[in-house]
Amino acid sequence: MEITQTDGKARTGVIGTVRGEIRTPAFMPVGTSATVKAMKPETVRETGADILLGNTYHLMLRPTAERIANLGGLHKFMNWPLPILTDSGGFQVMSLAKLRKITEEGVSFQSHIDGSKHMLSPERSMEIQRLLGANIVMAFDECTPYPATRKETEKSMLLSVRWAKRSYDAFHNGSDHARDNALFGIVQGGVFEGLRRQSVAALKEIDFDGYAVGGLAVGEGQDVMFEVLDYTMPQMPKAKPRYLMGVGKPDDIVGAVQRGIDMFDCVMPSRSGRTGQAFTRRGTVNMKNSRHIDDPRPIDAHCGCSACKDYSRAYISHLIRSGEILGPMLLTEHNLTYYQDLMAGLRGAISAKSLDDFVDEFHKTRARGDVDAL
Amino acid sequence: MEITQTDGKARTGVIGTVRGEIRTPAFMPVGTSATVKAMKPETVRETGADILLGNTYHLMLRPTAERIANLGGLHKFMNWPLPILTDSGGFQVMSLAKLRKITEEGVSFQSHIDGSKHMLSPERSMEIQRLLGANIVMAFDECTPYPATRKETEKSMLLSVRWAKRSYDAFHNGSDHARDNALFGIVQGGVFEGLRRQSVAALKEIDFDGYAVGGLAVGEGQDVMFEVLDYTMPQMPKAKPRYLMGVGKPDDIVGAVQRGIDMFDCVMPSRSGRTGQAFTRRGTVNMKNSRHIDDPRPIDAHCGCSACKDYSRAYISHLIRSGEILGPMLLTEHNLTYYQDLMAGLRGAISAKSLDDFVDEFHKTRARGDVDAL
Repeated sequence: MEITQTDGKARTGVIGTVRGEIRTPAFMPVGTSATVKAMKPETVRETGADILLGNTYHLMLRPTAERIANLGGLHKFMNWPLPILTDSGGFQVMSLAKLRKITEEGVSFQSHIDGSKHMLSPERSMEIQRLLGANIVMAFDECTPYPATRKETEKSMLLSVRWAKRSYDAFHNGSDHARDNALFGIVQGGVFEGLRRQSVAALKEIDFDGYAVGGLAVGEGQDVMFEVLDYTMPQMPKAKPRYLMGVGKPDDIVGAVQRGIDMFDCVMPSRSGRTGQAFTRRGTVNMKNSRHIDDPRPIDAHCGCSACKDYSRAYISHLIRSGEILGPMLLTEHNLTYYQDLMAGLRGAISAKSLDDFVDEFHKTRARGDVDAL
Repeated sequence: MEITQTDGKARTGVIGTVRGEIRTPAFMPVGTSATVKAMKPETVRETGADILLGNTYHLMLRPTAERIANLGGLHKFMNWPLPILTDSGGFQVMSLAKLRKITEEGVSFQSHIDGSKHMLSPERSMEIQRLLGANIVMAFDECTPYPATRKETEKSMLLSVRWAKRSYDAFHNGSDHARDNALFGIVQGGVFEGLRRQSVAALKEIDFDGYAVGGLAVGEGQDVMFEVLDYTMPQMPKAKPRYLMGVGKPDDIVGAVQRGIDMFDCVMPSRSGRTGQAFTRRGTVNMKNSRHIDDPRPIDAHCGCSACKDYSRAYISHLIRSGEILGPMLLTEHNLTYYQDLMAGLRGAISAKSLDDFVDEFHKTRARGDVDAL
């Protein structure tokens, strides 16, 4: 990646891929089952997204990676020509699959959709991500549960390191795909500084194209998460992308950018949109709340998304109450626009070396609350 | 309306409104609760729609006509600047409401949403449609059930005639709205020629801006429906718009256009889209069928909608199977495009005085079937 400017520990720059550039810090909308729910891909692009995340676990089960490969790959399948990062399946197999069994070889499990039996291993995960045509491939790891003892966490981290090496070897198997695309390692080690340091060191030894921090935002709380970043980030290579997986709320992202993270993904803006929550500079707004039903103003008069340009709170509130599909469509578009605007603001502030001021203003505006006065 | 060309009994032309022109024969997508389900209004426009239909019954219950009026009217509320026709509520109150009671005054009923008590009468229906800001207002009528005896049908038709007169008087109460917008009467009389003739004569006496044929497509079958049109249409004023309510399947529309109908509405293209059905020139395709899951071709290579330009059958089939919102979004867009393309074809054929050839080709293509060879 090219780092164009730094401000404290924060950095802004560009990650180049064969599918185009990713401006960092970047937020990746989640397109679990080959679609960002309730959104056309061109609308996702209009919100400002440079890259999407796809889920190996979901896609391997339905419609299957082999089927997507036969149809020309995930980009063509879902009509998203820009970069795609796929996760390894390690996280979802632990959170969604039934009857999982972890061995040194990998994880055998039953599909949550139809109970069919499957296996994920570093080699199979690399094969699936290659079949999908991912531009950024994630190493297969075990996402350590939280809480876990130091001993449990160490055992899990060491397994992830061995799987990381096998992922690296499987990725670099001579395929054209490996030549044109990137593989990221995932730092584990829970909330234990020594284990995080040990994990980073082992992954650096393997030499990945980028490094993710995994196993956070799993219930430990923001203070603990930031503490882990505080001691983990200085160990990570400066010249390579750093990705905080599954994070997060807007203030999580702001704090992580201050600590040197370049990439994020989270279902929050899209999932919240489907349940009637709107993100704004002054906090979240529940569009189901009855105070909106006569309100002619947009969710946020300063937002440029079509939900804010063309519709009132009253209308969006009506759609959500009536269970109309257009409600999730508009709120997802708004929330993704909010997230991408936040990332653009962070990038601009780092470029101007005024990140502290930006962050102060961010927190002050939120603390003011009063989302009705936007 | 301006009739620019006729071909047999069929006509093509333009209905002018303060919100823009409606090219006829016209198909009106149904925007029941102030939204065409799963569609942004700009996408509905892109399919070729000149006018939408809104439902008085749904809107009076939620969010209420008074609320929409306070927010600037239905056009602004739902971001549809073009013409809107609203029905009178007469049909839905019979098919959806609970504990209905019909008197000479009107219909009292309970909401199917929350059980709250309401009343619809000719005067209240006119008031609601005025509050919504409809460009074409429908007279309040009783939709006669099918089957019904001649006696029952006559009684119902005569009630509708009395309500039509009250609708006319209430509409023309001196409001600005009546000056700028139109009121259509609704011909009833079931499947009885004498009663249909009597209904038309009585409505012509009142002198509406357009005339609808109601009480069809309620289970009587296409042959009976066409028979009713065959003897009803010659009675209707030639210079005014003729609207066949709630119709229909593509071949219903083609046959009705041949008999002189100018306007249609139906939930079929949007509702079918949400259940995985795609309309094509060769008939309907069930996108849930497993034969599509590896098919790289679009639903219809000759269709210009974004579902056909950007996506494969395999992908749309995946979306529908996975319950993804983008599935209904794309299929609704495709189906509405199919309907609007059919209307454009009918208008073109009438203009060229080649409607018979167009209709022959329409039926031949459908009879050929083989939707996989589109």
